[in-house]
Amino acid sequence: VLARVAAALSDAGRAGAPWAPGEVGIGDDAAVLADPAGPVVVSVDAVVGGVHVDLALVEPGDVGWKALMAALSDLAAMGARPWRALVACGIPEGFAVDPLVAGLAAAADAARCPVVGGDLSQAGELFVSVTVLGTLDDGPRPVTRSGAGPGDALFVTGPCGGSAAGLRLRRAGTRDHRLVEVHRRPVARLEEGLVARRAGATAMIDVSDGLGLDAHRMALASGVGLRLAVAGTGAVADGATADEAMGGGEDYELVMATGDPDGLLEGFAAAGLRPPIPLGRCTTDPAERLLDGRPFLPSGWRHRF
Amino acid sequence: VLARVAAALSDAGRAGAPWAPGEVGIGDDAAVLADPAGPVVVSVDAVVGGVHVDLALVEPGDVGWKALMAALSDLAAMGARPWRALVACGIPEGFAVDPLVAGLAAAADAARCPVVGGDLSQAGELFVSVTVLGTLDDGPRPVTRSGAGPGDALFVTGPCGGSAAGLRLRRAGTRDHRLVEVHRRPVARLEEGLVARRAGATAMIDVSDGLGLDAHRMALASGVGLRLAVAGTGAVADGATADEAMGGGEDYELVMATGDPDGLLEGFAAAGLRPPIPLGRCTTDPAERLLDGRPFLPSGWRHRF
Repeated sequence: VLARVAAALSDAGRAGAPWAPGEVGIGDDAAVLADPAGPVVVSVDAVVGGVHVDLALVEPGDVGWKALMAALSDLAAMGARPWRALVACGIPEGFAVDPLVAGLAAAADAARCPVVGGDLSQAGELFVSVTVLGTLDDGPRPVTRSGAGPGDALFVTGPCGGSAAGLRLRRAGTRDHRLVEVHRRPVARLEEGLVARRAGATAMIDVSDGLGLDAHRMALASGVGLRLAVAGTGAVADGATADEAMGGGEDYELVMATGDPDGLLEGFAAAGLRPPIPLGRCTTDPAERLLDGRPFLPSGWRHRF
Repeated sequence: VLARVAAALSDAGRAGAPWAPGEVGIGDDAAVLADPAGPVVVSVDAVVGGVHVDLALVEPGDVGWKALMAALSDLAAMGARPWRALVACGIPEGFAVDPLVAGLAAAADAARCPVVGGDLSQAGELFVSVTVLGTLDDGPRPVTRSGAGPGDALFVTGPCGGSAAGLRLRRAGTRDHRLVEVHRRPVARLEEGLVARRAGATAMIDVSDGLGLDAHRMALASGVGLRLAVAGTGAVADGATADEAMGGGEDYELVMATGDPDGLLEGFAAAGLRPPIPLGRCTTDPAERLLDGRPFLPSGWRHRF
């Protein structure tokens, strides 16, 4: 199995990211990556069976895809470009390893992010831990959560709540539906993150736990208030409820703050990207949390402890 | 818990590895590391409760320590210097998180390897997945497993089998014993790996699964035979059996091949390190596996699939 997995992963994501001289991939004690020539952006994210995914509802390939995309989404939220990934998996007896690995490889291909290290263990329950490394190849400064200022305009890269709505449909027995697909195969907004950084975004966060909770986290880190305007903007996905958008999570859209909204819109247009959706603005009072004119409590998916 | 863990980890390992300008640690979507100015060596390693550790026999702090040291040992085996680490943990209900994190932090301190990213999830069983990043700050070439040639002398950085013997004693009820300590708190041979690389070692591997199996792996990757000489050399730890040395694992000593044994011994002496223990030599026949003159079957700890 180990050799098969190494073979399946060793060329994944290499399109557009060929081997550099001196690079060492999977198979030695460690991998060796060519000098990144700049800062390195790193993040780790784990998917646990029964906690983050219901294995009765999703395919092993979807778990692999989503595990890598969720980690890459953290790079997107910094405006970083994917570089390399490492994956540690715990595999329960009888779990289908090959489709899981195929899902990881497909996501690595889609993001042009080769998997250069792996660890495969037996385990009582499934876990997939993904570490991603990114670069800031056209400027040294990442976009953090903490840079938003009062008056900054807020945008989101796409409609939210689709993943939660897809999960609801899937739980009700639906298999073949656009929103089920959104839940199964989310896409990290990597190009959008790069463009937003170049266009001067002051703060970003990805919607992993819900638009309300993640926008709140960004506001908290930045010390600003929030006046979100969502009704009628398209920020709630067709077929999703406002609650699913605000607290569902796993949409992996980016919330962006900017003092130059026209520059952001022009940057997206010039890159041929879907126009970002206006989401309101940041305010001076750090305690303010308004949604369509009414106070809201940030909620979303949280760990039990 | 998350904030407490972040606080416990954010300064661990910073002694000797202070924050660089522009670095971002735990707390944002991703961490940002200053330009490493050279290649980056990366590895991931997971410890799973009930598979790699018997939680009835080891303390949570030992699990954290060993998880980080095992990953760092892969850097040592490349001759890389520890740079930064990321940790993803799955924590079962009622498991003591704080001692686990204290063990991680203690190992990060000991290795001067700050933890810059973390993910903490609930889980049905314990797992600790550690990704380590290293640098090759005094030369671009790592030491791989595959560079040993026929005639190269073999050495090991220290006696093996101590960890397996310590586990045996611990299972029999012993708590306070030198070998139990060796099992609980192994030390990655980081300085030794750096010195061996500078002294021209042609191949290295760390003893994670047993001296016999890991030396075999190095020989296999290098396409050479092995004539190991262990009897009377001190390569078997006092109190351990030869089987425990050959197949026990978790010693994290380094097996080194070199065409310049005097240079290696001088390098270790100049660095004030314990002299490496002679282990025999590499031979031309890639199928040869001799231990003290008799054929041996490489064995050691293996995954079930």
